[in-house]
Amino acid sequence: MGGGSHMLIVMKMDAGSKEVEGVVRQAERSGLKAHPIPGAQRTAVGITGNLGVVDPSGFETLPGVLEIIAVSHPYKLVSREFRPDDSVVVVGGATIGAQDLVIIAGPCSVESYDQTARIARRVKAAGAQILRGGAFKPRTSPYSFQGLGREGLEILKRVRTEVGLPFVTEATDIDVLDEVAEAADMVQIGARNMQNYSLLRRAGRCGKPVLLKRGMTATITEWLLAAEYILDQGNRDVVLCERGIRTFADHTRNTLDVSAIPAVKRISHLPVIADPSHAAGKRRKVRPLSRAAVAVGADGLMVEVHDRPEEALSDGAQALPPDEFDALVREIGDLAPVLGRRVPGLVTKS
Amino acid sequence: MGGGSHMLIVMKMDAGSKEVEGVVRQAERSGLKAHPIPGAQRTAVGITGNLGVVDPSGFETLPGVLEIIAVSHPYKLVSREFRPDDSVVVVGGATIGAQDLVIIAGPCSVESYDQTARIARRVKAAGAQILRGGAFKPRTSPYSFQGLGREGLEILKRVRTEVGLPFVTEATDIDVLDEVAEAADMVQIGARNMQNYSLLRRAGRCGKPVLLKRGMTATITEWLLAAEYILDQGNRDVVLCERGIRTFADHTRNTLDVSAIPAVKRISHLPVIADPSHAAGKRRKVRPLSRAAVAVGADGLMVEVHDRPEEALSDGAQALPPDEFDALVREIGDLAPVLGRRVPGLVTKS
Amino acid sequence: MGGGSHMLIVMKMDAGSKEVEGVVRQAERSGLKAHPIPGAQRTAVGITGNLGVVDPSGFETLPGVLEIIAVSHPYKLVSREFRPDDSVVVVGGATIGAQDLVIIAGPCSVESYDQTARIARRVKAAGAQILRGGAFKPRTSPYSFQGLGREGLEILKRVRTEVGLPFVTEATDIDVLDEVAEAADMVQIGARNMQNYSLLRRAGRCGKPVLLKRGMTATITEWLLAAEYILDQGNRDVVLCERGIRTFADHTRNTLDVSAIPAVKRISHLPVIADPSHAAGKRRKVRPLSRAAVAVGADGLMVEVHDRPEEALSDGAQALPPDEFDALVREIGDLAPVLGRRVPGLVTKS
Amino acid sequence: MGGGSHMLIVMKMDAGSKEVEGVVRQAERSGLKAHPIPGAQRTAVGITGNLGVVDPSGFETLPGVLEIIAVSHPYKLVSREFRPDDSVVVVGGATIGAQDLVIIAGPCSVESYDQTARIARRVKAAGAQILRGGAFKPRTSPYSFQGLGREGLEILKRVRTEVGLPFVTEATDIDVLDEVAEAADMVQIGARNMQNYSLLRRAGRCGKPVLLKRGMTATITEWLLAAEYILDQGNRDVVLCERGIRTFADHTRNTLDVSAIPAVKRISHLPVIADPSHAAGKRRKVRPLSRAAVAVGADGLMVEVHDRPEEALSDGAQALPPDEFDALVREIGDLAPVLGRRVPGLVTKS
Repeated sequence: MGGGSHMLIVMKMDAGSKEVEGVVRQAERSGLKAHPIPGAQRTAVGITGNLGVVDPSGFETLPGVLEIIAVSHPYKLVSREFRPDDSVVVVGGATIGAQDLVIIAGPCSVESYDQTARIARRVKAAGAQILRGGAFKPRTSPYSFQGLGREGLEILKRVRTEVGLPFVTEATDIDVLDEVAEAADMVQIGARNMQNYSLLRRAGRCGKPVLLKRGMTATITEWLLAAEYILDQGNRDVVLCERGIRTFADHTRNTLDVSAIPAVKRISHLPVIADPSHAAGKRRKVRPLSRAAVAVGADGLMVEVHDRPEEALSDGAQALPPDEFDALVREIGDLAPVLGRRVPGLVTKS
Repeated sequence: MGGGSHMLIVMKMDAGSKEVEGVVRQAERSGLKAHPIPGAQRTAVGITGNLGVVDPSGFETLPGVLEIIAVSHPYKLVSREFRPDDSVVVVGGATIGAQDLVIIAGPCSVESYDQTARIARRVKAAGAQILRGGAFKPRTSPYSFQGLGREGLEILKRVRTEVGLPFVTEATDIDVLDEVAEAADMVQIGARNMQNYSLLRRAGRCGKPVLLKRGMTATITEWLLAAEYILDQGNRDVVLCERGIRTFADHTRNTLDVSAIPAVKRISHLPVIADPSHAAGKRRKVRPLSRAAVAVGADGLMVEVHDRPEEALSDGAQALPPDEFDALVREIGDLAPVLGRRVPGLVTKS
Repeated sequence: MGGGSHMLIVMKMDAGSKEVEGVVRQAERSGLKAHPIPGAQRTAVGITGNLGVVDPSGFETLPGVLEIIAVSHPYKLVSREFRPDDSVVVVGGATIGAQDLVIIAGPCSVESYDQTARIARRVKAAGAQILRGGAFKPRTSPYSFQGLGREGLEILKRVRTEVGLPFVTEATDIDVLDEVAEAADMVQIGARNMQNYSLLRRAGRCGKPVLLKRGMTATITEWLLAAEYILDQGNRDVVLCERGIRTFADHTRNTLDVSAIPAVKRISHLPVIADPSHAAGKRRKVRPLSRAAVAVGADGLMVEVHDRPEEALSDGAQALPPDEFDALVREIGDLAPVLGRRVPGLVTKS
Repeated sequence: MGGGSHMLIVMKMDAGSKEVEGVVRQAERSGLKAHPIPGAQRTAVGITGNLGVVDPSGFETLPGVLEIIAVSHPYKLVSREFRPDDSVVVVGGATIGAQDLVIIAGPCSVESYDQTARIARRVKAAGAQILRGGAFKPRTSPYSFQGLGREGLEILKRVRTEVGLPFVTEATDIDVLDEVAEAADMVQIGARNMQNYSLLRRAGRCGKPVLLKRGMTATITEWLLAAEYILDQGNRDVVLCERGIRTFADHTRNTLDVSAIPAVKRISHLPVIADPSHAAGKRRKVRPLSRAAVAVGADGLMVEVHDRPEEALSDGAQALPPDEFDALVREIGDLAPVLGRRVPGLVTKS
């Protein structure tokens, strides 16, 4: 299961039939099959068989070998080869991955009941379908505000009932994951935890949809394999979230890799949304990046909104004030039909 | 002129007034002014004066100094501080940087008169306003097709007359720049030459608009300073072109940095377009990336089109076939009004 | 505690005294102090006070403000400002961070008692002072070998007693950390977990030295703040480990950032070692990178060794065979005196 | 000549014999040969023949095709397959690429006869064999000091005669290359010009050894292909110079990629040296990075030295003062025998 299905051994130009035979024999010794492919300048040898248990370095040191190329398509359950049709994930009344564009919005951190309820009402009125808000916060510095924890979850539950919005919130470790899954409508795995495999496995058994952010340095393959950990435990309700990668570019906190969205959708059936707030790091970039993400094919957006950003306990600089959020949702609502999509929060309202 | 206008010297926590005085004296010795700013944990010293000629390392080795921060805003003519209003560049009948979205399209390389004329007619019919086509080609390998050179320029001129489209083509070095500028309606400086300063200076005196691509590894500051070289020689008609940066991400040839577009437009008055073909490296990503670039605020697109991509002498894999290009222009035309813009090629047709 | 100690607000060139006063008033309203610094081209305003609770975006939108520069030195316990002298960490009989260069070696994964004991004897004979071996393995794919778990810990303990080498092994999550800390002489936090803050905090209370690998995408600041989480919980015995960062360069699995070693040692008192095996990804690069790391100032090396790499269940391609490891230790032993250091394993033997 | 010698077409898991036959027919239609390789999960098809003129996209759109992998070894003259033994380049009395480690040193810019002669005497006394000094300077900003130009070349020639050191200096464009080649003992192509193909070709005909710096964003393949341009014009005397790549890491100007040195030496016969000054950007990192580069296998170093760095017209912050340069050469001299090498400047002196 998984693993590369083919390996290509490229011979040096001056390698003769003796060296090629050496490669063939080494393959057979490992229970594999070798397929020599003589070319104009050099020979290559295709290797097939159970490659998952073979160490390519056994070939690398044979005489005449120039290079080894592993052809790897290691994902299975997340792959369109496994499931050709788009997956649709349902969170509360919202569907993610079908025609509707989902808008998830709310404060970076849950700071108080009042703050959360106030913002939730505002974003719902603007057209958001899911509330976001951090109760457990992963922070780069131990001296930063670390979130309200359980009290934050209680606030989110109360706001859900009173305002009528399902919510997504981050589970920062396995100790709190079950509690978060119990409370929330959707469990977020943050970028820093994208390769925290214990957490991914636990999320795969939590019974709630999972929002899996791309790690700042993750390739498409690593991101999809992280999702594979969750699906492999039986949870098919995974939504991917592009939130920017780390590059040399210093004009923005992270570089929103919009090209990853069509690239993932080609390989995988999972829905993909974008988080322009974390990529931007600056409020004024959130609207243009949101438009770009939707235009490239994202299934929705997750946006930070704060009505008093100057009082926010975290990331205030990237939170949109409510009136700018209104404008953003209207813009996305205008773009949607051109892209064959719609923003249901807006549709319902009118 | 230019250079950092302020420098901030951060003192160590245990630095006392003696160390701060040392910094002040060193500043005065260099003809600068020092402004100590005592903080809760440590003191910083702001330095002002003619910083362009001062070596910060003179301060770095003084006792008690922790770090030096240069506050640098080195561009001048390209800056919105210098010219608050958007610049508009006119190329043939097309305007770049105003409400109209410009569409530049054509083959990667000029291969023959027939090929160029055929494609030019097709892209004009679809709504393109400017023809692109490489006569002089910068190629990674010395064994790749290097372009038709002068013969390519002649073909482009003949096609301009017969088809009625102005054209942009790359000048790869100072030897050919004057010839290219003489023939073309707009001179392209490629990504690999973004810091070829002799070429930039010559382009600054060539009398034609210049399309300046971002280097694969260039920061916003370096890109704008490259443009500054051109403006400094008297040529104000510069259009910037984002074409993807080099990152660890391996699912795409380059990572199209859409966030650079609003970032540049905030700092500079110059128009910015995007080249999704080179960023994508794959035909199937060109349309989604084109939509993203326009949605984020680009002033236009430059797209490779080939009617027989399997016969193209360069970059066939990223060229759009004409019917896909038609679809792309229609998509952009549909997006445009939502963004307060229009595609004049489409407007004219109907 | 923590937080930036100064902030510099750079005004636009055309900002007048009215705009500067606006900034000063906004600072005072937030309980901060403003220090205007008039320059030749523009004014900057230094801001001091309790900046940890201030949102810079309050300033960003004021008229006349061009840019905000936060001067951040957020670490405390890990910093040389806090503790000027080098920290020395003792693991079994080995000291890390003093004159001695520590050599940590062993298989990527503990696969069996025989394999581990055999390799442990070989690396001890060659001069290694600490054994490495993974019991719990973080793997990119859910279908890869995930380690022997507890059985692996038991094997390592038995090998410690019989061969006489202390050992370091990775704790992949908070569920197993206490068990790992109970068994091992040093607990490793892997690169993928560098920002798993629950794990870091737990490691800070585990009573054993911690080996903290740099995340593939971590800046120096983020790495040191991860260490700060551990020290903040009372554990001062932290050793940092550079293991390569993710860049566009594709000739190597990760780019070993040797410059990070002197950079960290300048800011922090903690010892720093290097892991050339993971950076290289290929056996043949391990020796040159090991020499580079020691030459640049690393306090030691962690190297993967396997006597039957073609049978290894993980990362066989980067494991050194024992005779190459012998040669590596001899090389490092020869380099050491030139650098004012020594390899105690070698010294003891002769 | 050149071009990929093999291509591998990976089929989807559900592709049947009909789809595989479609690929085979398309190959035959293009005059290529197809070699189907049936695997456990899917089939791959090896393609051989004259691949240089084939567009892979012809295959990409065929039914059942998942992915295309081009196996590319495009260099020829620079390759060890072409010339197995190390090349040795002679510059004045110095040899680069054999046992001797070359030390190239001098100021960033030639500022005056006195400055250049003074520094040249100092670095020669310390053990340098070649003088460096910029006459034509590529500068990021048009407002920075651009070098003395021809006057700088005259100064370097006079210093060569009087002090007795051959010199290397940069040719920034094709207009000045012949003049630089006429004057200098070795012509430098800078990092920003690594893909200035006109300049590379001209350097290939200039009759003098060429020092080719790696572009900030260049892969090993691109760097070697840039060298191929020079060799292809008949000039075999090329020395490569690693000077740091651009990454997200912000503690250093560029990340010195020491792993590139053994990687290039494995593929190519050309000598490789390192420039720690530009990679570091800071004086205090020059010595550790120099040791690392030599330890990893570099054939020498190029180091900036200035006796009055606070007066330097460019890059003063990274220039070593002469006494630190003395210490550096002594350190390298101590490391050399451990690595089987020697510093001839030191040997001669004693």
